[in-house]
Amino acid sequence: MEIDKLKRVIRRNHLMDGSRRENDAEHSWYVGMLAMILGEHAPPGTDLQRVVAMLLVHDLVEIDAGDAFIYDPVEVAAQPEREKAAADRIFALLPEEQGCELRALWEEFEERATPEARFAKALDRFAPILANHHTEGGSWPLFKVSVGQVREKVKIIEEGSASLGAYATELIELSAARGHLSE
Amino acid sequence: MEIDKLKRVIRRNHLMDGSRRENDAEHSWYVGMLAMILGEHAPPGTDLQRVVAMLLVHDLVEIDAGDAFIYDPVEVAAQPEREKAAADRIFALLPEEQGCELRALWEEFEERATPEARFAKALDRFAPILANHHTEGGSWPLFKVSVGQVREKVKIIEEGSASLGAYATELIELSAARGHLSE
Repeated sequence: MEIDKLKRVIRRNHLMDGSRRENDAEHSWYVGMLAMILGEHAPPGTDLQRVVAMLLVHDLVEIDAGDAFIYDPVEVAAQPEREKAAADRIFALLPEEQGCELRALWEEFEERATPEARFAKALDRFAPILANHHTEGGSWPLFKVSVGQVREKVKIIEEGSASLGAYATELIELSAARGHLSE
Repeated sequence: MEIDKLKRVIRRNHLMDGSRRENDAEHSWYVGMLAMILGEHAPPGTDLQRVVAMLLVHDLVEIDAGDAFIYDPVEVAAQPEREKAAADRIFALLPEEQGCELRALWEEFEERATPEARFAKALDRFAPILANHHTEGGSWPLFKVSVGQVREKVKIIEEGSASLGAYATELIELSAARGHLSE
């Protein structure tokens, strides 16, 4: 019952048809599917099933903490403390052993110390770029995001997957050329 | 880009707070999470990661076929043919080997010949019962669903998980006693 609330946490980016903003639950499904479909772009030996599990749980803390807009430095700075408090409450709803397991998956995702976590984070960053690229910039012009700001975010994609990072760069430069990202 | 459309396929049941109807993408995430959280209710030896993968892809065909209301016999009868045509188109968008893999997961889910598929289907059936129970009957009174019709659906839950089947029965009888299911 608790996790149903994730369907009501709204993100900044839009669906591919631009009809409305995306929620965290459908986003989590989408990036889980990306892990299954784009698995060949992960480093060899990456445990993709672990990546899927990580992506399904990665936003649960936003039930309490909300979605921090990645290009808002004030929101981003306040987020780790809010998310830690959320994790303390939400994962404790489960039996102890199970709560620890799911929390460990979330912490692994946040720390990006494993290939699985780096690939999961890369997909999480890649998805809104793909959506914005295909919706005339989507949330980028709306929030006056510059091409430099988005280029900065590509580093995290490159660290998880070189080929996905290269493709994200391509999409960003195309979007900039079309005027969907400010200089 | 194609799978983004699943976020716009609307199901009959509502979110736990009753605020709106659920879409297929967030439903797919939800049942994938249920597989992770309720895994101990699967028969011993069930490959839960396979169950998760199956649940993430199980509704993709509804991008074309739409969601058939489980208590509408006309919709349900027309659905297999619509879904087969959808599978032919959608899985063929992927490279052949990958398309076959994902399609096999969907077919396994539909056929319910493995413990993984039976548990996945049980969770898919269990989720709307849980949601309806917690939203004063949700889509049940809205579509005049009877307690006998819902009891019928519990068999599929029992076949995937005895304990989950017993719990679903409890919720249904409670809902009936509260007048949220017609006799």
